[in-house]
Amino acid sequence: MKLTPQEIAQLVQARHVEGLQEKWLTGFARLGEAQETDIAFFADPRYENELYATQAGVVLLSPQYKPKHPLPPGPTWIYVDKPEQAFYMLVQRYKAPSLPGWGREAQAFIHPTAVVSEKSYIGAFAYVGERSHIAESVWIFPFAYIGPEVEIGAGTVVYPHAVIMPGTKIGRNCIVHPGAIIGADGFGFYKGENRPYERIPQIGHVVIEDDVEIGANTCVDRATLGATHLAHGVKLDNLIQVGHNVRIGAHTAIAAQTGIAGSSTIGAYCRIGGQVGIVDHVHIADNTSIAAQSGISKSILVPGKAWRGAPAQEVRQQLLMEALMRKLPELYPRLRELEKALSQP
Amino acid sequence: MKLTPQEIAQLVQARHVEGLQEKWLTGFARLGEAQETDIAFFADPRYENELYATQAGVVLLSPQYKPKHPLPPGPTWIYVDKPEQAFYMLVQRYKAPSLPGWGREAQAFIHPTAVVSEKSYIGAFAYVGERSHIAESVWIFPFAYIGPEVEIGAGTVVYPHAVIMPGTKIGRNCIVHPGAIIGADGFGFYKGENRPYERIPQIGHVVIEDDVEIGANTCVDRATLGATHLAHGVKLDNLIQVGHNVRIGAHTAIAAQTGIAGSSTIGAYCRIGGQVGIVDHVHIADNTSIAAQSGISKSILVPGKAWRGAPAQEVRQQLLMEALMRKLPELYPRLRELEKALSQP
Amino acid sequence: MKLTPQEIAQLVQARHVEGLQEKWLTGFARLGEAQETDIAFFADPRYENELYATQAGVVLLSPQYKPKHPLPPGPTWIYVDKPEQAFYMLVQRYKAPSLPGWGREAQAFIHPTAVVSEKSYIGAFAYVGERSHIAESVWIFPFAYIGPEVEIGAGTVVYPHAVIMPGTKIGRNCIVHPGAIIGADGFGFYKGENRPYERIPQIGHVVIEDDVEIGANTCVDRATLGATHLAHGVKLDNLIQVGHNVRIGAHTAIAAQTGIAGSSTIGAYCRIGGQVGIVDHVHIADNTSIAAQSGISKSILVPGKAWRGAPAQEVRQQLLMEALMRKLPELYPRLRELEKALSQP
Repeated sequence: MKLTPQEIAQLVQARHVEGLQEKWLTGFARLGEAQETDIAFFADPRYENELYATQAGVVLLSPQYKPKHPLPPGPTWIYVDKPEQAFYMLVQRYKAPSLPGWGREAQAFIHPTAVVSEKSYIGAFAYVGERSHIAESVWIFPFAYIGPEVEIGAGTVVYPHAVIMPGTKIGRNCIVHPGAIIGADGFGFYKGENRPYERIPQIGHVVIEDDVEIGANTCVDRATLGATHLAHGVKLDNLIQVGHNVRIGAHTAIAAQTGIAGSSTIGAYCRIGGQVGIVDHVHIADNTSIAAQSGISKSILVPGKAWRGAPAQEVRQQLLMEALMRKLPELYPRLRELEKALSQP
Repeated sequence: MKLTPQEIAQLVQARHVEGLQEKWLTGFARLGEAQETDIAFFADPRYENELYATQAGVVLLSPQYKPKHPLPPGPTWIYVDKPEQAFYMLVQRYKAPSLPGWGREAQAFIHPTAVVSEKSYIGAFAYVGERSHIAESVWIFPFAYIGPEVEIGAGTVVYPHAVIMPGTKIGRNCIVHPGAIIGADGFGFYKGENRPYERIPQIGHVVIEDDVEIGANTCVDRATLGATHLAHGVKLDNLIQVGHNVRIGAHTAIAAQTGIAGSSTIGAYCRIGGQVGIVDHVHIADNTSIAAQSGISKSILVPGKAWRGAPAQEVRQQLLMEALMRKLPELYPRLRELEKALSQP
Repeated sequence: MKLTPQEIAQLVQARHVEGLQEKWLTGFARLGEAQETDIAFFADPRYENELYATQAGVVLLSPQYKPKHPLPPGPTWIYVDKPEQAFYMLVQRYKAPSLPGWGREAQAFIHPTAVVSEKSYIGAFAYVGERSHIAESVWIFPFAYIGPEVEIGAGTVVYPHAVIMPGTKIGRNCIVHPGAIIGADGFGFYKGENRPYERIPQIGHVVIEDDVEIGANTCVDRATLGATHLAHGVKLDNLIQVGHNVRIGAHTAIAAQTGIAGSSTIGAYCRIGGQVGIVDHVHIADNTSIAAQSGISKSILVPGKAWRGAPAQEVRQQLLMEALMRKLPELYPRLRELEKALSQP
């Protein structure tokens, strides 16, 4: 990649450009770390001071933004409506990490009954089990385990050490990050006759629609009966636990280390923070926001609200409660003062 | 599988049967999702409405249950004392996922000094290290790593990508789910002479008794000295952390993402929720229940009680405290009211 | 190993020795579990009762320690200034787990363009990608995935099933425990034109300095731009999440299941407990202590303080607040009492 400010301005459909046009840009960097051959962008007003100190060759910024001070002459300033999106569009176009070409590396194991498109990549030490079906334009990296009777749709990437257990269906353009485990048995027992736990056989499976991401070392358990189901566009970060028979609605995003217990259902377009716990058999309405570390022990039936705390309340209520808790040390003396006043004759 | 209601009634030792006897049942499903060739069961009164709408061909239910409305004529109703257990007994008998037959797939690595029963399954890309001993009727799936000097008892299943580090002993009929890591080094350091952390060599190991389950991506660290020990029948869900030298008593079950720090001991028959944290060097008495997301920072010496909160209290006390916390917003105005009243002459 | 008390006393530079000199010591154990051929140590006064009951052949203890009762005659008592350090120095010298010798096991995959020192160990089913560089004295265990363009410094151990994604740099004498995933994509999206989440390409990488440990199944995400950075001597326990562009300062230690969201920076010499959550874009000053399960939602700018709670406060303040919360059940009646008193004429 080698671009001039003018070429960049055209690519991002810039409003206007200020500064030197004759320079070569060859890389991308964060505003605070950029060098003179780098393109950077400015979008977060908290970091405005970086605008005045940056060494970047080109900075994308919004024409709506009014800087407190005049901008320095070093960088070329390219004004564009959505600088962050414009920046990442350029990154995607010029620097996106390349994936391996189609083919099969030595030492891959492909079961003779598996159906694998020729136009796919199967890495060394990848395993594709009986009667599985790998569509075209799929990348199966080294050490990925694709169990029997799995289906993987076109454009999907399965990174090293991901485990796709038998019977799982994965749609198109999904990304399964390293170490993710899809379709391991749910955690289900009933009281046995002679021992406390008798295993419930887990004969369901996992269904994942298109455009879903499953983070590194995240676990999505198979259903006891029927399916654990992740709808179109769901994004899961790392180290998440999704219990058996959970259903997650379209375009819901969940941050790292959150856990969702068995049979709960999450609506569409929810945003769930990290380390949240959601108990079993509850429902979360569409468009719900849940703050990090919250605990959800009851269904949330009204859509579009924001929750926080453990047990969670609506954010405003919870923040008020937290503020009052921090004031408890001054409350007790006031109470004693009153008691003293009243006990006086 | 192809069963009639009469055959099912015999298999589950039904009390009595109502409805059509001439039909074929070929599958199992949840009451709300079942079709006319499916067997379903009813056990949770919260879902009674599903009884009236189900399409199931056969429904198992308890003769003790008194439905609010007359049951519809479509399904054949089979009355049995423990419908859930009866249902899963049938599932286990007719639909349990089959495991591979005995044999060794191509590309398995078995060290010449390892002793591996002929009557076992060793998958492609499985690794069995020096002087390890694999008993009969053991399944070692692809990508399982069995380090040197490991012992695995009869009937145990080690799923893909599980890691069993050197010296681990695993009993009979255990299940190690995908990505579980047993016997990695504990997290132990002491203050070094010239640097803040000097590693404590971890020369202990992990001992797992019979009938234990270790969930996907769960970590059980080896002991510093001696053994980290999971007793008979322990059930661990996914993404759990078990620190070095922890001991867990028989038939204790622990839900996902819980962490137990080094040298703590958990009694028998405990039930521990998800995302619980237990500090190091404490003891939890037998038969203790701990609610999800609790934090245990002190030993629990009286057996049989239920705990909740962080730091945890007995459930009743904690629930009262939580309720009062939510009332803080109305407490402060009352206090101000009193102060105003008293400040008046 | 076969040592006499006298040899041990010399090795640890003992102050003095009491008890029998003629015996052979062949092992190491915890004080409460030791047999007569074992060396043990005493350092934690909470376990003083074990001093009187131990079966150990040799016990290391501090000359400063004043036991409540006379010590029994069975063990040989070796007085040394730092008994725990002395003990582990002996363990390290005589019982440290041995690592495999240099060489390449059958079925390793090493890309022809990779540069791998002859004086290294590459296990069966290990994968070393294009243009990677493995220095001397490195152990790459079975099923380790070393992606393209990775650099690994001398003395580093990469355990089974660790995943080192493309472009990662790892320094000298590091330990990457089983299942750790370094360099998976960060969790970054922006609002798309036609769908709610558009992926931000993650073109940064991970840089790990010397003497760092990464625990089992821990995830360290690559940077969006630039580097996620772990400085010299950082110690991470198991199942930790380190988000994209996080920076962790030298000699900071973090316990299991903690999560650090994107772009936050942690100072040097911090001690962070288990299950802590740290939001994105905050800074934690050097030498900060954070108690287990805390939630950090704002920067901590003053170094050297201890924090606790969610949201976290300084420990003393938080402990006071927690104590007062537990007293709420007695506060409400006092308040009602006052209201009653005042409402009386």
